[in-house]
Amino acid sequence: MLIAKKWIYAKAFSGYPTAENFRLEEETLGELKEDEILAEAIFLSVDPYMRPYMGQYPVGTVMIGGQVAKVVKSKNSKFPEGRFIFGNFGWRTHTICNPSVGDFRAKPYVLPDFGEVPLSLGLGVLGMPGNSAYFGFLEICKPKECETVVVSGAAGAVGSLVGQIAKIKGCTVVGITGTDEKCEWIKNIGYDYAINYKTQDIKAELKKAAPKGVDCYFDNVGGTTTEIVRGQMNTFGRISVCGIISSYNEERAKVFDPQRDFVGKQLKQEGFVVSRWNARWMEGIEQNLKWIQEGKMKYRETITEGFENMPDAFIGMLKGVNIGKAIVKV
Amino acid sequence: MLIAKKWIYAKAFSGYPTAENFRLEEETLGELKEDEILAEAIFLSVDPYMRPYMGQYPVGTVMIGGQVAKVVKSKNSKFPEGRFIFGNFGWRTHTICNPSVGDFRAKPYVLPDFGEVPLSLGLGVLGMPGNSAYFGFLEICKPKECETVVVSGAAGAVGSLVGQIAKIKGCTVVGITGTDEKCEWIKNIGYDYAINYKTQDIKAELKKAAPKGVDCYFDNVGGTTTEIVRGQMNTFGRISVCGIISSYNEERAKVFDPQRDFVGKQLKQEGFVVSRWNARWMEGIEQNLKWIQEGKMKYRETITEGFENMPDAFIGMLKGVNIGKAIVKV
Repeated sequence: MLIAKKWIYAKAFSGYPTAENFRLEEETLGELKEDEILAEAIFLSVDPYMRPYMGQYPVGTVMIGGQVAKVVKSKNSKFPEGRFIFGNFGWRTHTICNPSVGDFRAKPYVLPDFGEVPLSLGLGVLGMPGNSAYFGFLEICKPKECETVVVSGAAGAVGSLVGQIAKIKGCTVVGITGTDEKCEWIKNIGYDYAINYKTQDIKAELKKAAPKGVDCYFDNVGGTTTEIVRGQMNTFGRISVCGIISSYNEERAKVFDPQRDFVGKQLKQEGFVVSRWNARWMEGIEQNLKWIQEGKMKYRETITEGFENMPDAFIGMLKGVNIGKAIVKV
Repeated sequence: MLIAKKWIYAKAFSGYPTAENFRLEEETLGELKEDEILAEAIFLSVDPYMRPYMGQYPVGTVMIGGQVAKVVKSKNSKFPEGRFIFGNFGWRTHTICNPSVGDFRAKPYVLPDFGEVPLSLGLGVLGMPGNSAYFGFLEICKPKECETVVVSGAAGAVGSLVGQIAKIKGCTVVGITGTDEKCEWIKNIGYDYAINYKTQDIKAELKKAAPKGVDCYFDNVGGTTTEIVRGQMNTFGRISVCGIISSYNEERAKVFDPQRDFVGKQLKQEGFVVSRWNARWMEGIEQNLKWIQEGKMKYRETITEGFENMPDAFIGMLKGVNIGKAIVKV
């Protein structure tokens, strides 16, 4: 018989969480069944995502979250006693589970040998935030040597790693964060420039830090910061949207941040100017001509007669009076 | 001696253009030099892009734009007399130019044989709008069979083609446009559903037209329409941003549409949830561990002691008191 402690989501979040959103409870754990393990929490993680994600759960649920735990009893040969694991067990001191059941997110995994490196890193650099930085930056921004990279939330668990990966890849890196101490620290770990968004003019400082413009932006915050950085991006710039921490504690109805849809639904958006495909121009014309000739593509034109009527045709088109392509016949 | 007519950008645009923004002038053309041609306009194009792009030019410039013209005199063997060409000559009836000089945009090209198809299509389906639809939709949205595609500005020169290409690719296609007549027309050319944004509730109608959600969105308009469509997109949805016609006639300072940066700078933005890379999870952990062991990656943790302090650690992290990863040690 073992008493586990657990934190319950006691009251729905509204604005910043306070003590009354949480309640500490105890739970008596029973015996292990076949394939089950008993895991004892050593380090637990607190992460920004918990704030918006808890909204999907009813009040009374155990708070969600990952932990580094030790297998203290085992009836599963893949999870021997004494091994350290990562598990999404929630805010609990002790957990009984069958580690072979469920999807990837629900399943714990045995941590590789960290050598001299502290176990708690299984929640950070060597866990979800580390992989968010590694994959989320490299796979989406695809940074090239000598490019300029901007990271918001640059002193956070993910942002502090993105800047260092960008340096490893040969980029110039600018971090945006909220205190002078954080600015100091990110410069110590390799950031070329640090901007304190609470005391400095981001727009002006970014122009100094990135005089050639911004090629990649790793966005942890959304909101005004993102608008400013996006305004200084170069042609063919890439933005990886990891989070929108600036609005997690706002009511959804009050602040609508377009970045929100991008994160949750993993959307991709790209703008274009058609001259990008100049080298393939005739391919497009020929394929469209073929579709017209095959009867698969219909067209319609609104033709205005007379060169002297160009302005009228133009103004009308902007007001939407044409259907299909607006043309002037001389 | 030939008198060409041309339309001058007489006064800077502010809001919707009016007659006083334009002035008709005449110009006397001289003799052809080596390699030059004289082109006579047959059809001229009026397009939305002209409204924002003219802002880059000084008052007094000839209005920009493309035309289908006939080569009426030629000293260039690649552009023989009698051939039809496309040229970005601006709003002019007659133009003398050396067609071999300049970048792709400045250079005219000889139109392929259109067969029975009208010449004016060189400005539409078989020109820039056609290629915007062909490349901008297929290359960026990468539509798959049975997916749902939404097109805003669906009765326009580009939008009317995007919907048909989407049908050719086996998609369900919803068009958003501004009059009942336009709705009727796009349904005639193959759109499965048409929404009149001026008289219907886009949000409610789109839920009916796309009950399984939206996979691809081809955006010609920006603004509120885009916010609504984005809110109904599916995971891994793709948005191609072609234009933001809803705000072309607004003053920049008054209406800031994030889509604006995407078009002009051809930006790419993608949100992510790190579980996307579950299959490569250990690769990320091992690479980050290697970088730590090589001294290329530094980390910092803010460790709170005691399981009973989980809520405090969580609230503090949301307020930014931690530097690096926030952890609780049991």
